[in-house]
Amino acid sequence: MTETADSLAALTAEIREFARERDWEQFHDPKSLLLALVGEVGELAELFQWVPAADAVTAFADPERKQRAKDEIADVLTYLLRLADVLDIDIAEATAAKLEDSRIRFMPDAVRGIAPHID
Amino acid sequence: MTETADSLAALTAEIREFARERDWEQFHDPKSLLLALVGEVGELAELFQWVPAADAVTAFADPERKQRAKDEIADVLTYLLRLADVLDIDIAEATAAKLEDSRIRFMPDAVRGIAPHID
Amino acid sequence: MTETADSLAALTAEIREFARERDWEQFHDPKSLLLALVGEVGELAELFQWVPAADAVTAFADPERKQRAKDEIADVLTYLLRLADVLDIDIAEATAAKLEDSRIRFMPDAVRGIAPHID
Amino acid sequence: MTETADSLAALTAEIREFARERDWEQFHDPKSLLLALVGEVGELAELFQWVPAADAVTAFADPERKQRAKDEIADVLTYLLRLADVLDIDIAEATAAKLEDSRIRFMPDAVRGIAPHID
Repeated sequence: MTETADSLAALTAEIREFARERDWEQFHDPKSLLLALVGEVGELAELFQWVPAADAVTAFADPERKQRAKDEIADVLTYLLRLADVLDIDIAEATAAKLEDSRIRFMPDAVRGIAPHID
Repeated sequence: MTETADSLAALTAEIREFARERDWEQFHDPKSLLLALVGEVGELAELFQWVPAADAVTAFADPERKQRAKDEIADVLTYLLRLADVLDIDIAEATAAKLEDSRIRFMPDAVRGIAPHID
Repeated sequence: MTETADSLAALTAEIREFARERDWEQFHDPKSLLLALVGEVGELAELFQWVPAADAVTAFADPERKQRAKDEIADVLTYLLRLADVLDIDIAEATAAKLEDSRIRFMPDAVRGIAPHID
Repeated sequence: MTETADSLAALTAEIREFARERDWEQFHDPKSLLLALVGEVGELAELFQWVPAADAVTAFADPERKQRAKDEIADVLTYLLRLADVLDIDIAEATAAKLEDSRIRFMPDAVRGIAPHID
């Protein structure tokens, strides 16, 4: 672990280097990375599927379960950063910009306590 | 956009505050956040589904398409960070640790040019 | 609607013909169909994401919501049947066989009332 | 395997009975079933993720790989039928109706050879 571990750009660069050292870049077209991302989201979903919704936070405070959730969340992030990288997308900038849009689109006084519905 | 936009911890805190200001924390149990994440992964998948695999990077260099991919990737990251947050998981640390494990598990000389298969 | 609407083989044949008439078979490689399936699963997930788990069945008894769930479930099935078809898989036979395996793997007296956990 | 294996209604009834005999109906709220479906879609995606798109049909003609695809496709269908069942949705009728809508929405002469784009 380095000081840069909290930086999206640094993590992205580490993952790119990991792929490069193994000559795995050839497998990393966007559609394949998307399916890999779906695979990891599926593994994450399986951890939670039968846990009662109201108990999920407490159940995953258990160290063993928490470690499994950490591993799967890490795998999802890894493929998401790799996908953004091959598409030449600055994910940190994209996320900050989207959040800024959402701040305007969902003004607190208009939506307080109301789940956004799907159009 | 602030200087901290590249930090996972800072983005996580901004998203938490966004939810808090709208009193949306009540909707953010892990299973609901997972379904929201799945919804955004689905929107991302729809952008790519019919694009020939070999053309995907080029097709998404088009500014309009790239913006849509940016928006959907941002949405996936937003829900992933929110999920890690409600589970009290340090996603930057988890991802760096998983990558370190993978460096040992997949030694470059053993796996070079070979796609990891599923057991 | 025909008498054959309840048959998996008949639905599969109708979907194949639908694709053939539009010359869409060229887009239906397995990875593209999988991403399309993921897109529809995402749309289904979005319908349910913020509904409290305990209220979901009641909430979707509402005719308008039920219709939306019907449409999305239909879309998921359509892509799943199409995927099985291009892989030359008899989905009815595969599902009956898997269920038979599960009947033996999960004997009622051993698992009654216990959610199967993930290994 | 019975004569009724090709009927969606018969498969749905078998899966319902499978759950009832194990007292697993208590776990089968829609959001939990959706996460289980996502888990199975993820397992299916993992089978295909690193296979070149153009080779996927051929690669899965291999009996061992085909069996794995059959198993995962069966699991996806099982949870989809169970979800439709708990929502009291006739999935065969819903799918035939949606297909009928699509026949009108996408007239062959208007869309021949053109992948439907996402609005």
